[in-house]
Amino acid sequence: MKQTSIFTAMKFENDLILRAARGESIERYPVWLMRQAGRILPEYRAVRSKLSGFKELVETPERAAEVTVQPVDLLGVDAAIIFSDILVVPEAMGLTYEMIEKKGPWFNQTISCEEELKFAQTDFDIEDRLGYVMEAIKLTNKELGGRVPLIGFAGAPWTIFCYMTEGEGSKTFSKARKILYTNPTLAHELLNRITEVTIQYLKAQIKAGAHMVQVFDSWAGILGDVQYAEFGLKYINKITEAINEVPVTLFAKGAYNSVRDLAKMNCNTIGVDWNMKIDDIRNVVGDTRTLQGNLDPCVLYSSHKEVEMLTNNMLDSFKSKRHIVNLGHGVYPDVDPDKVKTFIKTVKNYEIQY
Amino acid sequence: MKQTSIFTAMKFENDLILRAARGESIERYPVWLMRQAGRILPEYRAVRSKLSGFKELVETPERAAEVTVQPVDLLGVDAAIIFSDILVVPEAMGLTYEMIEKKGPWFNQTISCEEELKFAQTDFDIEDRLGYVMEAIKLTNKELGGRVPLIGFAGAPWTIFCYMTEGEGSKTFSKARKILYTNPTLAHELLNRITEVTIQYLKAQIKAGAHMVQVFDSWAGILGDVQYAEFGLKYINKITEAINEVPVTLFAKGAYNSVRDLAKMNCNTIGVDWNMKIDDIRNVVGDTRTLQGNLDPCVLYSSHKEVEMLTNNMLDSFKSKRHIVNLGHGVYPDVDPDKVKTFIKTVKNYEIQY
Repeated sequence: MKQTSIFTAMKFENDLILRAARGESIERYPVWLMRQAGRILPEYRAVRSKLSGFKELVETPERAAEVTVQPVDLLGVDAAIIFSDILVVPEAMGLTYEMIEKKGPWFNQTISCEEELKFAQTDFDIEDRLGYVMEAIKLTNKELGGRVPLIGFAGAPWTIFCYMTEGEGSKTFSKARKILYTNPTLAHELLNRITEVTIQYLKAQIKAGAHMVQVFDSWAGILGDVQYAEFGLKYINKITEAINEVPVTLFAKGAYNSVRDLAKMNCNTIGVDWNMKIDDIRNVVGDTRTLQGNLDPCVLYSSHKEVEMLTNNMLDSFKSKRHIVNLGHGVYPDVDPDKVKTFIKTVKNYEIQY
Repeated sequence: MKQTSIFTAMKFENDLILRAARGESIERYPVWLMRQAGRILPEYRAVRSKLSGFKELVETPERAAEVTVQPVDLLGVDAAIIFSDILVVPEAMGLTYEMIEKKGPWFNQTISCEEELKFAQTDFDIEDRLGYVMEAIKLTNKELGGRVPLIGFAGAPWTIFCYMTEGEGSKTFSKARKILYTNPTLAHELLNRITEVTIQYLKAQIKAGAHMVQVFDSWAGILGDVQYAEFGLKYINKITEAINEVPVTLFAKGAYNSVRDLAKMNCNTIGVDWNMKIDDIRNVVGDTRTLQGNLDPCVLYSSHKEVEMLTNNMLDSFKSKRHIVNLGHGVYPDVDPDKVKTFIKTVKNYEIQY
């Protein structure tokens, strides 16, 4: 509890992102990148190469904290995001995953019937099974020393459901979506369980020192709006209703028909991918929420001059001080970190006109 | 030339789909399924099991024709679609592909620089390299004997570009999209070449006996609307301008911001995926185009009763006689063909109220 109280009371050297999330006055736009703590940085690869793999890094608080702080030191971003994975939640619930190089996550066991709900436990102590994340959060804040806020995160219940039922990535997630039609009772039971654990998990992250949290619904876009309301939004809403301690960001990738409903929730910020038209999104979201995004990650492959130009164009398109700058998706691992620096520098030099 | 003239002059027993495409009077909605000639049918699997693999089936006109006709006989669909693959075009241009079981297409060689444009040839005779498709079309029409029209197809240039540069399926197609920023000149040169060959290919299919054609832009949804206009729509438009012989269907999956522009093209029908809201789409498309779609393929996993109910709901949502019924994407291979029959029966029993 010691770290928590220290950092709750502490003033940040740079709290731009918290002010932007709350719609308060900002002198410039805050900027960070999804997957900023990761393979783009040679310094990350150096830490990773000494370990057995991705999971050991996630589960070793000292190393997770180290790579979480790296982009703050090396890139100058306005927030850190704890290095972890959304799949630690299904693992804590009883489904172990492997992260296979160049392929992605893989679960040996999945959930397809009531009997298998024994692999979706809720009656455990979050600290017992995911204590390493909370420990990493505490260590990160110690190392950050209040320079910038630290973002905690979790997958949205629908996306976690996708992995727990499909067992791996998929273009269609047809096994996951099949259950919505063949056994909606099972689907709701599993989604409820994931939601319950996710709320506990986010609260534990906040208690450990996360200053804001983001909920990632990576597979929102594979459902039509009616199904997404029933199996996606309903559970995100339960999470946002439960989290009042810190600003909440919702990023439902591809859910262009559901942005209006997301924006009605108890959240501060809505993430937008690079395919969304900002004018349209602002129109349905209104001015009471901050938007986060949305440079195409591929822009960072272009020349420094073009990165600067396209970043400025993106910034122009938002036309509001309620903007946290980011990419429209995670940064790609083979991007030159110098291009990321140009992106960040361009944002920092941009003059807010609103 | 003999077959062509016979079938051009011939009357169809059932030409519902052609009338629906042209916006003419129809007594009931026509229905077919993307991937109807495929693994859902045991009769297809029986043919396939006697051959070395998918590509041998594609390249053997007698067998391709046989599986093309199967769903007309077995499911009672209102159109046949020639059994083939969009990747025969890059192969004809110089990039051989393999179809790897449970993984998808894989190209040993890709195009990433001007030098490699030698693998994107245009100066060849379509009949020389893709004659097997035209032969399959002729054989199919012989076997159909005018029962229903036959649909020809090709991938849209942007989707073919994705495979020729990325070399395999991808969640992000970041290698393909990188080129749009780093070497737009190369991108346009390659897209122009693909477009040129695609027009020749579609014209050859029509000459051989395709009564309508569909252009599939499977990866439209990974570009923002500005880039999709430059690298996607521009080339689709060249194709539609060149094809005046038969009705044209455009299916740009996920391109929700570009439907308005697609609908302005020289086409009859716009495909809609299951995530698109029909009211919104009809609103931007207007009443001068037919919409094709859009049942969620996963509905076919539910009970017969629910398939019927959800199909009727989908039909209700279109509120227009300008509708060709289909799924919102290809039928999934593990669907029970009896559920497909229920879907088709429900469509055939539905009373048009417009």
